[in-house]
Amino acid sequence: MSIITGSEYIDRIDRLQMDIWVDGHPIEGKVSEHPAFKGVMRSQAALYDLQHDKSLQAIMTYSSPSTSEHVGMSYLQPKTKEDLVKRRKMVQQWAMSTNGMMGRSPDYMNTVMMALASSIDLLKGKENCFPEHLLSFYEYARENDISMTHTFVNPQVNREQFYFEDEDDEPIATKVIDKTDEGILVKGARLLATQGGITDEIVVFSAGGIQDKANGFAFSIPSNTKGLKFICRESFVGGDSTFNYPLSSRYEEMDTIVVFDNVLVPWERVFYYNNIQVSNTFMDASSFLPFTLHQAVSRQIVKTEFVLGVAQSIIDTINISDYQHVQEKVSEIIVALETMKALIIKAEVEAELDEWGFMRPNQKTLQVACNVFPRAYARFGEIIQQLGASGLMSIPTEQAFRSSLRKDLDQYLQSKADDAESRVKIFRLAWEMTMSAFGTRETQYERFFFGDPIRLSSGLYFSYDKEAYVKRVKTFLGMD
Amino acid sequence: MSIITGSEYIDRIDRLQMDIWVDGHPIEGKVSEHPAFKGVMRSQAALYDLQHDKSLQAIMTYSSPSTSEHVGMSYLQPKTKEDLVKRRKMVQQWAMSTNGMMGRSPDYMNTVMMALASSIDLLKGKENCFPEHLLSFYEYARENDISMTHTFVNPQVNREQFYFEDEDDEPIATKVIDKTDEGILVKGARLLATQGGITDEIVVFSAGGIQDKANGFAFSIPSNTKGLKFICRESFVGGDSTFNYPLSSRYEEMDTIVVFDNVLVPWERVFYYNNIQVSNTFMDASSFLPFTLHQAVSRQIVKTEFVLGVAQSIIDTINISDYQHVQEKVSEIIVALETMKALIIKAEVEAELDEWGFMRPNQKTLQVACNVFPRAYARFGEIIQQLGASGLMSIPTEQAFRSSLRKDLDQYLQSKADDAESRVKIFRLAWEMTMSAFGTRETQYERFFFGDPIRLSSGLYFSYDKEAYVKRVKTFLGMD
Amino acid sequence: MSIITGSEYIDRIDRLQMDIWVDGHPIEGKVSEHPAFKGVMRSQAALYDLQHDKSLQAIMTYSSPSTSEHVGMSYLQPKTKEDLVKRRKMVQQWAMSTNGMMGRSPDYMNTVMMALASSIDLLKGKENCFPEHLLSFYEYARENDISMTHTFVNPQVNREQFYFEDEDDEPIATKVIDKTDEGILVKGARLLATQGGITDEIVVFSAGGIQDKANGFAFSIPSNTKGLKFICRESFVGGDSTFNYPLSSRYEEMDTIVVFDNVLVPWERVFYYNNIQVSNTFMDASSFLPFTLHQAVSRQIVKTEFVLGVAQSIIDTINISDYQHVQEKVSEIIVALETMKALIIKAEVEAELDEWGFMRPNQKTLQVACNVFPRAYARFGEIIQQLGASGLMSIPTEQAFRSSLRKDLDQYLQSKADDAESRVKIFRLAWEMTMSAFGTRETQYERFFFGDPIRLSSGLYFSYDKEAYVKRVKTFLGMD
Amino acid sequence: MSIITGSEYIDRIDRLQMDIWVDGHPIEGKVSEHPAFKGVMRSQAALYDLQHDKSLQAIMTYSSPSTSEHVGMSYLQPKTKEDLVKRRKMVQQWAMSTNGMMGRSPDYMNTVMMALASSIDLLKGKENCFPEHLLSFYEYARENDISMTHTFVNPQVNREQFYFEDEDDEPIATKVIDKTDEGILVKGARLLATQGGITDEIVVFSAGGIQDKANGFAFSIPSNTKGLKFICRESFVGGDSTFNYPLSSRYEEMDTIVVFDNVLVPWERVFYYNNIQVSNTFMDASSFLPFTLHQAVSRQIVKTEFVLGVAQSIIDTINISDYQHVQEKVSEIIVALETMKALIIKAEVEAELDEWGFMRPNQKTLQVACNVFPRAYARFGEIIQQLGASGLMSIPTEQAFRSSLRKDLDQYLQSKADDAESRVKIFRLAWEMTMSAFGTRETQYERFFFGDPIRLSSGLYFSYDKEAYVKRVKTFLGMD
Repeated sequence: MSIITGSEYIDRIDRLQMDIWVDGHPIEGKVSEHPAFKGVMRSQAALYDLQHDKSLQAIMTYSSPSTSEHVGMSYLQPKTKEDLVKRRKMVQQWAMSTNGMMGRSPDYMNTVMMALASSIDLLKGKENCFPEHLLSFYEYARENDISMTHTFVNPQVNREQFYFEDEDDEPIATKVIDKTDEGILVKGARLLATQGGITDEIVVFSAGGIQDKANGFAFSIPSNTKGLKFICRESFVGGDSTFNYPLSSRYEEMDTIVVFDNVLVPWERVFYYNNIQVSNTFMDASSFLPFTLHQAVSRQIVKTEFVLGVAQSIIDTINISDYQHVQEKVSEIIVALETMKALIIKAEVEAELDEWGFMRPNQKTLQVACNVFPRAYARFGEIIQQLGASGLMSIPTEQAFRSSLRKDLDQYLQSKADDAESRVKIFRLAWEMTMSAFGTRETQYERFFFGDPIRLSSGLYFSYDKEAYVKRVKTFLGMD
Repeated sequence: MSIITGSEYIDRIDRLQMDIWVDGHPIEGKVSEHPAFKGVMRSQAALYDLQHDKSLQAIMTYSSPSTSEHVGMSYLQPKTKEDLVKRRKMVQQWAMSTNGMMGRSPDYMNTVMMALASSIDLLKGKENCFPEHLLSFYEYARENDISMTHTFVNPQVNREQFYFEDEDDEPIATKVIDKTDEGILVKGARLLATQGGITDEIVVFSAGGIQDKANGFAFSIPSNTKGLKFICRESFVGGDSTFNYPLSSRYEEMDTIVVFDNVLVPWERVFYYNNIQVSNTFMDASSFLPFTLHQAVSRQIVKTEFVLGVAQSIIDTINISDYQHVQEKVSEIIVALETMKALIIKAEVEAELDEWGFMRPNQKTLQVACNVFPRAYARFGEIIQQLGASGLMSIPTEQAFRSSLRKDLDQYLQSKADDAESRVKIFRLAWEMTMSAFGTRETQYERFFFGDPIRLSSGLYFSYDKEAYVKRVKTFLGMD
Repeated sequence: MSIITGSEYIDRIDRLQMDIWVDGHPIEGKVSEHPAFKGVMRSQAALYDLQHDKSLQAIMTYSSPSTSEHVGMSYLQPKTKEDLVKRRKMVQQWAMSTNGMMGRSPDYMNTVMMALASSIDLLKGKENCFPEHLLSFYEYARENDISMTHTFVNPQVNREQFYFEDEDDEPIATKVIDKTDEGILVKGARLLATQGGITDEIVVFSAGGIQDKANGFAFSIPSNTKGLKFICRESFVGGDSTFNYPLSSRYEEMDTIVVFDNVLVPWERVFYYNNIQVSNTFMDASSFLPFTLHQAVSRQIVKTEFVLGVAQSIIDTINISDYQHVQEKVSEIIVALETMKALIIKAEVEAELDEWGFMRPNQKTLQVACNVFPRAYARFGEIIQQLGASGLMSIPTEQAFRSSLRKDLDQYLQSKADDAESRVKIFRLAWEMTMSAFGTRETQYERFFFGDPIRLSSGLYFSYDKEAYVKRVKTFLGMD
Repeated sequence: MSIITGSEYIDRIDRLQMDIWVDGHPIEGKVSEHPAFKGVMRSQAALYDLQHDKSLQAIMTYSSPSTSEHVGMSYLQPKTKEDLVKRRKMVQQWAMSTNGMMGRSPDYMNTVMMALASSIDLLKGKENCFPEHLLSFYEYARENDISMTHTFVNPQVNREQFYFEDEDDEPIATKVIDKTDEGILVKGARLLATQGGITDEIVVFSAGGIQDKANGFAFSIPSNTKGLKFICRESFVGGDSTFNYPLSSRYEEMDTIVVFDNVLVPWERVFYYNNIQVSNTFMDASSFLPFTLHQAVSRQIVKTEFVLGVAQSIIDTINISDYQHVQEKVSEIIVALETMKALIIKAEVEAELDEWGFMRPNQKTLQVACNVFPRAYARFGEIIQQLGASGLMSIPTEQAFRSSLRKDLDQYLQSKADDAESRVKIFRLAWEMTMSAFGTRETQYERFFFGDPIRLSSGLYFSYDKEAYVKRVKTFLGMD
């Protein structure tokens, strides 16, 4: 096989018949027809179809090293700076078709697996580690265009600085409870698998800070594995109408709690287990961060462009560009956009080969980007709300426009630049992007995408090399 | 009559059979049974019932000057500082039963009418002004516990600094188009009548800055007046379940566009019309601002207390009080709460009798409060989101707890301090308060409650007396 | 004796012949003639003289309970809310004559001693405690109008969270190293005694968090005690000209490192020593915070008024009031001013008698004020700089105006509203207030006046009672 | 000639015997020996000497196109992206020797003249324009390593939005009052020539927004031209000691008001005059902004590195790196540093040839940088002050360390990581950088370097191309 089409994606997911729960009810029938999922699956399918667009194939795919078939560019292991540019262009091509609103378009997880597979030497010769399983799973995913979700985080029982579960209690955080000839048995829960329920596989990595070796493991299993259950949060799809809900009708990805009820992970899918040292160091030492951040920042740039377009559309429609505070607010968005664009260029210009020959974009630079964006994106929402003002409360639905109210709406909701319907479309988009349950979840998603912002700051502080500058000060003061 | 009960309120509204449109459909049958309104009407009814609670009657009512019957304390025209304290206690008693989440509980409009009626001397002897109509409407409202909505704002066609409609066009902003023996005829639309559709009357005042005298008027009419139409925005009621939607199932007040299609306002309900000078000065010169701000700030204090309670509940449940940044964030809420409390005390301590013998709280102080609160409330939302983190995405519904998932949820969503159900209740409340369409609308409502924040700043700058301090500087510099 | 005059103050200080070091040189001759001190001593003297102004004596003094002579109102132990108002008026009267620029005008330390003397019951019957010494020192200070400085802080060797000196090392932080028949011997250093060198006495209290009992003590000694040395930081007096340096020529209070080189504190001046429990609790349990904060906030209000006057003077002189961002910036100052005024009123309105019959202003409210002001004052400086722009660099000296350049300056530095000299005076004041070494030290002083702002936030969080609001949330959610 | 040495620079300036006034007195004797100038002239001389350092000559110089001699790299007209990199490296090499603290090191004005000379085609064939004079002045400057100052701004009489001088009044803003066979006569004043008095030439350009053609001109004249007078602001040199004043003793550049008292500008030095259209468009259309911003941003990066070094030095010396808020504050500096570095890389990567074959760095990107840096630099000062806390008040002078106080200081000011003298050096540097008159002037200089920050925001808003993004939104909404 190679790149799949949208309908292949949908069929494959529908056939899995996973154990998914929405609002206390198990999904019966096709996932792709469920109101909570049909929109996002259609959008995801469109992404897969894009790979078959001849005019884009050079951007979206490359030739598989094993079969020479077209495979997704997001699987490309970059060896040159040009490869990084290729990867960025692919990410942004896909992002453009979702306006950056799908944080987990397939390129995200494909990139994650590519990064981990590029660092398997770190696992070689280590106890309970199976680098060859990881590599072959990556190749399997690449060649079959497998869709994936993942979970890195344990349930939030207690966020105290030093907290560990009692080993004898029934597990809350997922742990290995047994091993057999066939594989390892895991039990417990994990948070929050975005797109859980609409992917072929679920990838599970422990996130570091492990004390009990039973909590340290990495594997991937099909989403319909026995004992695996996805508990969805409330759906934030507002409805089917793209007039009313231009975003959530298309891009609501769902977040799920994943329960492992004595799930068997077959040995060939175990990447490592019961090795504290590896569990606590593999992710950080691997190229996970540089490659995944490179993907995320590329997408966030497209999303920021969309926000800028929405802000300016509001300004145009009600004609407020002469206000200095309006100019200042939009210039904040521009500054953020150009900053993000500059950081990704710098990360690429300063990329370096790692010890295994892969071209890593500069990680520090990307860490700066992921310190900047969460704050910026939250601020964008505030700006849009300030610009839209009461207009964000005057947003009748499609049905109202289709009713006898039309004449009133046309008269009273017209704006300087647009007719009433166009103006309401713009404001509904602005509203859904920043004020709906879907929109605020996007803000929260970006805010915590790479972890708690406070910890990201601390992480940047500690990892940044400040010594050269301290030395310059000491030399200046004659202290050396 | 005098104070009404909740069921009297509901019956009265249901009987009006107004012309209300929701999602392109007119409401047929009882408003109080419509999903968009039943919750908020029940909450409003409970407020009316509270007036009959013997233990609260001294707080909630006073003796009518005309009939000696109990009438609502919000109608009291204050003549002493003690009266102001009484008014505040009444407002906060009601606010406590909605946690300040209903910006238009009846005391708001009652206060507005009380304030305007206390300033009728400004209308005496002026062309096209009928102070006696205003006074008698106030008395009618007081004695019959009339519920009201109002609209002050014209449609947002063009927010340029200098914009006026062409007089010959079909009106967009409501204007007087004719007068007859029976009254004046008005045509056009107005934004945004909160609680439009669930009140006995709608009060309409022009908001100043009038150029065309046809746009300047003030009146009140029953909500079912012929030609009057309420076009609702989408309802933000999440559903009936108070587990799932503790706030919107109770407090979603609705905002409506009001259309006047050749509506006849009978003379006895016209307060003034076709008088530019009065239209542009009455509101500012009256005691509207001091009394209405006093009501609003009293309510906002109770709301802030509730926010603080929610923030601390999150902290307790996941045990994060040891983090310095958590302490700092909550201290921001405390600072805002104490600041608001201090400002209302100062406004009362510095209250002064106006020329008609009514005790006005200090307006400048209250203007400061309404510069502080909109920013603070938006910040509260951000703080709650930062504290709640991913927990705000792990919020299964009531139905999930009632299903076979219960065991999983109990195990995996338990927290340090609470069982899973309690913890989810707290997080659902936090989510609905800050991240649902209901919650973000509350933020927007508070943000623009007394107008555009930028203009509020400018207004404060210009109205504040800075001369004494400039003089002190000049004396210090020997420049006098 | 009773209230002193300015010249009595100056004579008394000059006669002490303390051991004061400025820029590596000991002061010889009269302190009051030294360039670093003459201006501030003259200002301080003027404050003392104000007490003798017949028209102000009712504000500035009260009748001594022991002698019926006039003594300074800042010594008054308040027993009613009216007493608090009296105290505030006195503080603000003095502050008005320094525009709040002297953080350590005598009322500050007088208030400190009054507060501690009002809480002596906490020392009664405790080991190594001498409440009667504290009381008699307070009475001595009151009756003789003694000027005082104090130090609460140890040298900043290591600000790690858990740091303690090795007991066997030569002391850095001051400690009791011996006791004799005559008193205790202390050795070490303390930071930063403001006004050190220009007061009769120095009061020394340990600040809590003591581990080694030798670090816990409280006493007062004359500033010329043998072994006591004041090491001044660089003087920030710009020069004698009040045209050039309107503030530092008058109000530069100096900060000093105090060295105790085997200093003997006679028993009658020892308030307590070698009692860890008392050392760690006395300040917090006493009325120190409520009374001292009340004094500080009263002064800061007057200072804020002065800042507002300066901001508006700049605006007037170059005519920039039409800019919306200018209005917004000044409205920030107004909001801070009104907030501070409101908080002090609330603190007085909510004052309560303590167990010994003294009327304490509400401490929580004042803690809020001291969380607000440090941030606000730093922001004021930024605002002044933004308003003044390049004008803050075009500030010729008095000598330039007295030279042949006068004609050029008059022509080229004239402004819309003022002649060149007046305009330069305003800008020099703005510059000195926010951009000179004197001005930035004022900012730093206010920023750290009651300690590290981060700790103040934490302190507010922990001391504030949030339980009532948490309970309200739980009741609302049916969790009680 | 070609590149000069430091002593050649000093001799040349001393020989000019300009008319410079400091504190109301004209400078007599050598400028280079005057306390206000000797430090900065020595630093400037060191920069010139650096050009003769063989190991740096490839970075600092290039071969003159007319003589093949070494001339300063800052004069290089870039034709390739490599040329831009060369220019940046030269700027940063010089900046490293002043830690970016000299905003007007010679490369700044050299770059300005290079940029203007590269755009002379805009003047060709225009009335009263002499492109050949501009070109030949550029070549003269390049070949003789001429030092220059400039002034762009008129006196700040009235900052109202629409303000113009009455033509008949005595001029305040400099204007052309006559022309003769020898040249034009100018009269009036200009603000603020930084380094005025220590450069060979003064370059004067009108800054746009001209209404009266007499205000529009461009020329350069020697600093000792008859009728030309430099009125200095107060000197911010703290003193000679580099221990006490490590920055101002070296880098205080002085700002001067420049008075033109009927100054004759010879024709060969007139670039244009009496041409409103050219006066209002030349600067914007030329490559002035891209090249000058490229120089400025390059320098600001080095300055930010120095700030980071100072912040970390404070942290090390008092051992506060474990505090999360400390980490967060420093991470803000890191984010700003990496952002600035990224923006300059982007500007170079996206550079394009202009119509005359010169390689312009991307202007929009650099505009973003000059929106970012002024806010960032002001924030740095605040961060340093927050980190340094009371330590910034405990900073004895060199003389104190040389006195008998040494023993006390060594004991009581030692810190965790450093001896007392080293620690005091670090804190004095931090103090001088952020709290001295020199340091706050640096902040103000950076804040207004490219104009009023509010206008920079507006400028960015209007010049940025938002249409592509608006179009994307419209396409998404089906509005196209």
